Amino acid sequence: MTKREYIIRQIAKTNKKNYENYVVTRIYHRLNRNDVKFMTQQFVNRPEGHALTDMYFPQLKLHIEIDEPFHKKQEKLDIDRETDIIQATNHEVYRIAIAEELEQINRQVEKLVTQIIKKIDVKEKSEKWEPWDLEKEFNPNYYRTKGYLDVNENPAFRRIVDACNCLGQNYKSVQQAWFKSKVYPNHNLWFPKFYENAEWDNRISSDGKVITEKCKNPEKYDNWFNDVTSNLVKRITFPRSIDNLGFRLYKFAGIFETDLEDSSFENGVIHRLTQTRIEIEKAS
Amino acid sequence: MTKREYIIRQIAKTNKKNYENYVVTRIYHRLNRNDVKFMTQQFVNRPEGHALTDMYFPQLKLHIEIDEPFHKKQEKLDIDRETDIIQATNHEVYRIAIAEELEQINRQVEKLVTQIIKKIDVKEKSEKWEPWDLEKEFNPNYYRTKGYLDVNENPAFRRIVDACNCLGQNYKSVQQAWFKSKVYPNHNLWFPKFYENAEWDNRISSDGKVITEKCKNPEKYDNWFNDVTSNLVKRITFPRSIDNLGFRLYKFAGIFETDLEDSSFENGVIHRLTQTRIEIEKAS
Repeated sequence: MTKREYIIRQIAKTNKKNYENYVVTRIYHRLNRNDVKFMTQQFVNRPEGHALTDMYFPQLKLHIEIDEPFHKKQEKLDIDRETDIIQATNHEVYRIAIAEELEQINRQVEKLVTQIIKKIDVKEKSEKWEPWDLEKEFNPNYYRTKGYLDVNENPAFRRIVDACNCLGQNYKSVQQAWFKSKVYPNHNLWFPKFYENAEWDNRISSDGKVITEKCKNPEKYDNWFNDVTSNLVKRITFPRSIDNLGFRLYKFAGIFETDLEDSSFENGVIHRLTQTRIEIEKAS
Repeated sequence: MTKREYIIRQIAKTNKKNYENYVVTRIYHRLNRNDVKFMTQQFVNRPEGHALTDMYFPQLKLHIEIDEPFHKKQEKLDIDRETDIIQATNHEVYRIAIAEELEQINRQVEKLVTQIIKKIDVKEKSEKWEPWDLEKEFNPNYYRTKGYLDVNENPAFRRIVDACNCLGQNYKSVQQAWFKSKVYPNHNLWFPKFYENAEWDNRISSDGKVITEKCKNPEKYDNWFNDVTSNLVKRITFPRSIDNLGFRLYKFAGIFETDLEDSSFENGVIHRLTQTRIEIEKAS
């Protein structure tokens, strides 16, 4: 996907939402920078619960909410278990009110755009600004050079093989979702599906900290439960999800460890988040 | 309707047409002037026939066509006989190509915006710039002050009574579509429907120059035909139409005179455009 297609698709998500379309395009066109990435209608997890953010600038951890006085937002969010949800704790939220006069709306956007430019400036000066680069995104080598994956930066890959190779597995292609790490002793790489399927009913809590794993196949259940609770490994976890444009995503969710005490034969196995960051060994 | 609603509705017409939405919003937001009016997806009549213009600036008689290489425009136009069609002879057409790179599209828009600003500048300097003013539009007093109606400027009214009063009839309300002028000797004001209805089947040619009038009621046909072909009057004509946002419009189409030679009992009465401009007598 090119930047052109990406931007067009993000804006297209505001189809039929006329005021959102107006404000989102105005912010984008007035900002007028091709090194700034944004998403529209992105699901986020905030301390107060799940929400849909109108416009999100991941490089700035900045969310724009467009407040329409005459049109109360739909309360019920249509979140599928496969939906990609961004952890937005400590992110900033900026509100644009749909005022009576277009000029009032435009003034708010101008103010916001000035603030965005300032934020980028500050980041540039402290060498913390990373221009939006499509080649880098989802690219294992980019993260290898960076030296770590951190849940707070929402790192993600398009393919299981990319996540594996980012962490030193050195595969050509893969067919599975569970790998013994070649680099991290007693760690496995795990690519669970958090939506029900024929074999599994795995779930993750909305804060991303607790995974419940359950095999659905009664013939395999005994072996699986015994195996998983006796051979304890740390799980470098990349849940499979669908991003806000409908593309497959394996986003780093952190390292999980099995909680034997809370696990049971009836309710399944519990894994708890113990690390939100993993260092990547530089290629030697 | 406020300017806010007007702009939002015009942009909303590009819903689902993602590249059009991108270019139209970019032109609008980069131009960033609230005294410039535009329409999207406006039907126009050009020398080569009817067309749908992507973005039209009436104050500048400037049309923007957005060329998508990968998506050939639908050939067949869905023009209703009630559709408002703008006479666009001698108007300028500017093309924006949807290039591979977003930057290439943006550069074209920047160039166009610079040209638009120059055009406005030139008009301002020669005192020919009329800022977009919602209060003036469709307002009989505005045209009375201006002193004329000219087909080339597409003057229009929302109500029959407004057109009547613009031309000195001085009515409070009206219920008909045919009035003897109090100001212009041997002229009538006419508000025909150019779509078939119970009583009439009237048509206007696509170049706006020939009207064919036909009564559909067989019991009234004789009287009507004799009357209309013996009491010849000049017709100051305001066809009833629907504008590009779905609102009722009576747009000045010029003064028509009956062509007795081409009229016949079988085919109806022919009226031909003889003047595209009418002077308005200033209120004394």
